[in-house]
Amino acid sequence: MATPNDKTHVFQAPKGTRDFYPLELARRRWIEDKWRQTSIRHGFDEIDGPTFEHLDLYTVKSGDGIVSELFSFTREGGDKRYALRPEFTPTLARMAAARANSLPKPTKWFSICPYFRAENPQRGRLREFLQWNVDVIGDDSPEADGECIACCIGFLESLGLTPNDVTIKINNRVDMETILTASKFPEELIEPMLVLLDRRLKITKEQFAEESRKIGATDDHINRIERIHKLTGRSNFLDVLRDTVGDKYPETRPLETTVDFLTKNGLWEWCETDIDTVRGLAYYTGTVFEVHETTGSERAIAGGGRYDKLIELFNGPPTPAVGFAMGDVVLSLVLQDKGLMPTDEQIAQDLGLRPDVYVIPTTETEHLVKTLVAQLRREGLHARHTYKSTRNVGKLLKEANNAHARFALILESDTICTIKDLDSGEQEENVATDKAVARIAPPTTE
Amino acid sequence: MATPNDKTHVFQAPKGTRDFYPLELARRRWIEDKWRQTSIRHGFDEIDGPTFEHLDLYTVKSGDGIVSELFSFTREGGDKRYALRPEFTPTLARMAAARANSLPKPTKWFSICPYFRAENPQRGRLREFLQWNVDVIGDDSPEADGECIACCIGFLESLGLTPNDVTIKINNRVDMETILTASKFPEELIEPMLVLLDRRLKITKEQFAEESRKIGATDDHINRIERIHKLTGRSNFLDVLRDTVGDKYPETRPLETTVDFLTKNGLWEWCETDIDTVRGLAYYTGTVFEVHETTGSERAIAGGGRYDKLIELFNGPPTPAVGFAMGDVVLSLVLQDKGLMPTDEQIAQDLGLRPDVYVIPTTETEHLVKTLVAQLRREGLHARHTYKSTRNVGKLLKEANNAHARFALILESDTICTIKDLDSGEQEENVATDKAVARIAPPTTE
Repeated sequence: MATPNDKTHVFQAPKGTRDFYPLELARRRWIEDKWRQTSIRHGFDEIDGPTFEHLDLYTVKSGDGIVSELFSFTREGGDKRYALRPEFTPTLARMAAARANSLPKPTKWFSICPYFRAENPQRGRLREFLQWNVDVIGDDSPEADGECIACCIGFLESLGLTPNDVTIKINNRVDMETILTASKFPEELIEPMLVLLDRRLKITKEQFAEESRKIGATDDHINRIERIHKLTGRSNFLDVLRDTVGDKYPETRPLETTVDFLTKNGLWEWCETDIDTVRGLAYYTGTVFEVHETTGSERAIAGGGRYDKLIELFNGPPTPAVGFAMGDVVLSLVLQDKGLMPTDEQIAQDLGLRPDVYVIPTTETEHLVKTLVAQLRREGLHARHTYKSTRNVGKLLKEANNAHARFALILESDTICTIKDLDSGEQEENVATDKAVARIAPPTTE
Repeated sequence: MATPNDKTHVFQAPKGTRDFYPLELARRRWIEDKWRQTSIRHGFDEIDGPTFEHLDLYTVKSGDGIVSELFSFTREGGDKRYALRPEFTPTLARMAAARANSLPKPTKWFSICPYFRAENPQRGRLREFLQWNVDVIGDDSPEADGECIACCIGFLESLGLTPNDVTIKINNRVDMETILTASKFPEELIEPMLVLLDRRLKITKEQFAEESRKIGATDDHINRIERIHKLTGRSNFLDVLRDTVGDKYPETRPLETTVDFLTKNGLWEWCETDIDTVRGLAYYTGTVFEVHETTGSERAIAGGGRYDKLIELFNGPPTPAVGFAMGDVVLSLVLQDKGLMPTDEQIAQDLGLRPDVYVIPTTETEHLVKTLVAQLRREGLHARHTYKSTRNVGKLLKEANNAHARFALILESDTICTIKDLDSGEQEENVATDKAVARIAPPTTE
């Protein structure tokens, strides 16, 4: 049969992964369903790629340093180096490069799949998690950035979140570079300064000054950063931008155009410009944004930006692109924090999981139940029955209610039944059982 | 930015994995959706587990021999041995064992997830594939076997397949052992003989005889097997069973009870008993079955059976269980062979992917399009617009049709539009644009 078994061994899911029993999975599916419906409504088409990729797909973008953060592996007995995908963008860039000549412009794609990171599990971070990716490829307009952000807001709104709960913090790397240049930062200091700004609010003022000096910033540079921050109060970045850079403000006005688009569409109340939002990843080339819970008690809910050079890096033609990703772990914590995760009954309703009919036998009719249930299922109804031995109708009605069934069908005799609407409590007696399907309206598909 | 890139390098998906562009993914989602709806209708609850597990979860069941068939790995820099899941049953057994005391009896679970096998890709076999698993746990009755088979048939029927297209071949290991014992096979020969029977139709009569002798069978044993096969004609197994074993037929009549259940529920026309269906895996303890395309031109579409000892093996309490699995690869080939894969337009309809409204601007109104589209999306409609520069209404109506949109909204002026029903061709002019949402009925969800 199998190798002898050690009776003391407890089989467990790997650290940082999850077992989804029915209630947990229904909650996950509810989020997935909202992600999918929001994406479709905003005109995105769903795609997917392999769960693991050749390792070089990740090192070409991020260098060998990324390997320690990956589940990278050589299959035992094989020679190729693979990695479980830690993010979607390299797969998307590879797929876009492969069909660059035949894809529509712009191409609007979304995906919902599992991802893997070899970090130590902690609140908001797991080793396997789901992620929603939304991307507009082949459109360099700031409106495309706005369209991604609008889709993200459309999702947050569909969950019942409001601008009081979450904030989209928006910045633009081109604008930031303009500010830093106007503030007399030498070119070679700009990139490391941006990386450091990303961490500014997570460290003390002293640590920030010390780390700035380490990368070669002078006291004058540090003072200028401080002055900019005093000006902004972290939200009127556009004014600061104009004040600081004056007539050096680029004519394309990238950030301003994105802000205009969101304002015109009534979405600006969800957003603020934020000089500290830079995003760690080096491949962003323009707009960057993050979604944060307003109290700041959880990690970022989502993040993204424009990456106009990436598809080229995978040997596709020069192709502008913008997108964002949102994981299920932090999002679920925020929904729980705010009491916005619906009840299990509501989720069952939303996902179309409610049984249409729960068949209840009497002692005389129990031999008919399984055949009737099989027949109802063939007619397209979600039919359930008890597996318990009790024939107490009251107890079984309670069981039907617990299963959130829409109707109970009490099988009174070979041919006659009672149908009870469990939502309204209304009851119809003496129904011919072969007419029951017609009475229990076909499920309102959801 | 990143390491220098070799411009001649072509980035590809790993061998045996798939990139799903929108049309391919829609076909996959269509199958997933049918799997899910069928499972729910039959009273199963969805679960999921980690994409990778500790390697010992697979070796405890199948021995170390299985490692070469797995994507097993030690993470670079780590020490634990993992494997990408090759099948669901060990995860299910682990999850059932962990909550054995609180799960309902029976527990009816299904799952739809990706699986991984390190075999050489060929027709019907890939290295990453989707699989649907359906299991009834904690019910040792032959009706539970029948309920699984009924769910499988319910799915096949929902695709438009008929008993002329596919056959469920059913056998029972207990009955087979009874036959072999009655045919004077010594106990130690029964297990290897079952494994060999599983391959009987894939090899010649001479090869079968030779391999039988290799495992220790005599010419008398081989002749008895031949005689049984002549009797059965591969379908009236129950008669053979009674003829061969006479009063040694077990009182529980496992196979006969499953056949009765399926017959009573009008499902027997899909099935036949088949002495050669044994299933390779050693853990089956009773009913075994496989779904085959009737012409035999493809591999098995699905397979499963009863595994009453497995949850114990994962240190749960003794728990009977029965289930089956169906992959997406062979199934898709069969649907293509038979012309049963719906058109892309039908799939878009079934999955709710059709745009509710396609907004068409004129030269005068093009500045209004994006804001109107954003507004329609916030109202819950799936709204699209052209990204092309043409303002030729005829061309744009064609684009709306190609997108399978339900309605076109031609933006005539700041406040007035024409709404065209693209299914019926009916057109309404001079509609106030702010009343458009009400005219384009909210999408009939499905």
